[in-house]
Amino acid sequence: MREVFHQSLEDVQARLVEISELVTIAIDKATRAFGSSDISLAEEVIEADSIIDDKAIALDELAIEILARQQPVARDLRIVVTALRVSASLERMGDIAEHIAQLTRMRFPERAIPKGLKSTFTRMGELDVEVARTLTELLRNEDLSLAELLRNSDDAIDELHISVFEKVLSDSWTGEPSATVDATLASRYLERFADHAVSVSKKVVYLATGDWAQDTDSESVPATV
Amino acid sequence: MREVFHQSLEDVQARLVEISELVTIAIDKATRAFGSSDISLAEEVIEADSIIDDKAIALDELAIEILARQQPVARDLRIVVTALRVSASLERMGDIAEHIAQLTRMRFPERAIPKGLKSTFTRMGELDVEVARTLTELLRNEDLSLAELLRNSDDAIDELHISVFEKVLSDSWTGEPSATVDATLASRYLERFADHAVSVSKKVVYLATGDWAQDTDSESVPATV
Repeated sequence: MREVFHQSLEDVQARLVEISELVTIAIDKATRAFGSSDISLAEEVIEADSIIDDKAIALDELAIEILARQQPVARDLRIVVTALRVSASLERMGDIAEHIAQLTRMRFPERAIPKGLKSTFTRMGELDVEVARTLTELLRNEDLSLAELLRNSDDAIDELHISVFEKVLSDSWTGEPSATVDATLASRYLERFADHAVSVSKKVVYLATGDWAQDTDSESVPATV
Repeated sequence: MREVFHQSLEDVQARLVEISELVTIAIDKATRAFGSSDISLAEEVIEADSIIDDKAIALDELAIEILARQQPVARDLRIVVTALRVSASLERMGDIAEHIAQLTRMRFPERAIPKGLKSTFTRMGELDVEVARTLTELLRNEDLSLAELLRNSDDAIDELHISVFEKVLSDSWTGEPSATVDATLASRYLERFADHAVSVSKKVVYLATGDWAQDTDSESVPATV
């Protein structure tokens, strides 16, 4: 019984890592599809999102089953609670990757990235992929220095997000309304992706230490600029 | 001991209702401030958001404490699990109200609602308030017919959301880029607010019945139109 118990706890943590890996693949493909108007890559992301959704639901089910049958305590309890508290955020990160893929598909065969913002969005996409990889590593090994690294990437993404609005609201902006809408939504998605990762990382700090980090899902930039 | 236990479980459910009430007040004030450029009402919402954040954290703490000390089962366990799974969504709904208040403050003394969209945004705001009230009632009494009602309001909001994009992308749109950005963000916030409510309502169905509704946090409209 004890052994079965520990197997299922290991399973919970392994599943968190697995979902985070799938999210990493999704955001990598989605941001590359967005940058190069690659419709088949975009389709792959849209297709695969339901797998992430299903895995998040199955993880919640497993966590609740463990709580009901095995009444874990201390660190074991924290693993289960963390799963329940972060599964929805990981699922949302997958949704955001899907949204970026949908933007790509919606504008195809035209480019989804508005003129003049290609390098900004490319950099934001790279940073989001980095964030997802770091989060996966953090979930795997609970090396809390990774949480710090993650926050730094989030700060860099926030700055790029603000620069998108500065560009769109500047006199030099000649984009059509559709380009303004796309820039606004894409920037918001890419920025929110990293916010979710930071929110998950704070809950991993709780998992590892039992301490509550100040862990509301706050945003470090205002709603608009 | 048994009595203390039941008190704290009632407390969990009462706190969920309380947070949902605070969210209702926030979205009511925020959407009215947005509609009338009422800066002091907007400031109230921004000021009060940290109360919602704190209450969500305290609720998570209480839920974990109950899990650790009292090993609840069956419906008692579902109450605690539901709290852990929905607290973040309620907190996000509060954040969204704050974002709408921030948009209002950002544009003050000018109007935040772009020309030609006033009646659409007024209606979306009213529907969001209705959604928040219905959700509070659902959390209070678990009358599952309210979950259905809530989905209908969400559908109506989604249609209005799509109509905002149709307007902004039509030939008749003469708004500046800043108006396009504001319309895009405000519409997205108001639409997401209802999505979160639907997501919470699905978890209340689980609480009441023990059945898993198909409960990913999916969105019923595409990322853009």
